[in-house]
Amino acid sequence: MAPQYSDLELAINTLVTQFHAASANNSPTLTVEEFQGMVSKDLPTMVKTAGDQEGLNELLKQIGVEDGHGVTFENYWELVNSLANQQCGLLEKDKSVKCTCLLL
Amino acid sequence: MAPQYSDLELAINTLVTQFHAASANNSPTLTVEEFQGMVSKDLPTMVKTAGDQEGLNELLKQIGVEDGHGVTFENYWELVNSLANQQCGLLEKDKSVKCTCLLL
Repeated sequence: MAPQYSDLELAINTLVTQFHAASANNSPTLTVEEFQGMVSKDLPTMVKTAGDQEGLNELLKQIGVEDGHGVTFENYWELVNSLANQQCGLLEKDKSVKCTCLLL
Repeated sequence: MAPQYSDLELAINTLVTQFHAASANNSPTLTVEEFQGMVSKDLPTMVKTAGDQEGLNELLKQIGVEDGHGVTFENYWELVNSLANQQCGLLEKDKSVKCTCLLL
């Protein structure tokens, strides 16, 4: 029987599977085009800057992708990390949670 | 109107909010007891070792919690990171995805 995952476990699974689903050929690394497609499809609200080339280049630089290289899971994880950090900040504003989620 | 989040964005939100929900007093840091409660409630399938004191101590050490300290979001993120890494490994086995998600 498949394991029964909790909401938090499903969330972790989603993070992993959506990265891999974005690769057309099951590669461990996304092409820049695949990554841009994933960001615009799967992160439309949290990442609004990757639509044009300049914003995309800036984002790739932030997550440590070198020129001419693909996007590894580690690069993607930098992005997730930074978005989680942002969400912590929003939560702090909304609900007076004291949040020190400085991750990067 | 509240923003419409995608599945991936909701997953990131879940990771952030469930950590904070585990704190009884909206503190930025969980007590070890709160953390243990969260792991047994929210990560029952992925983390099976924190039920006894020895397993819990080992886990706390792995995620960088010093003796007598609480569990910060950064510590928690180490755990999430390691679980994502595990899931990548499982995915690789299941679906022949080549995965190089070495995050830690």
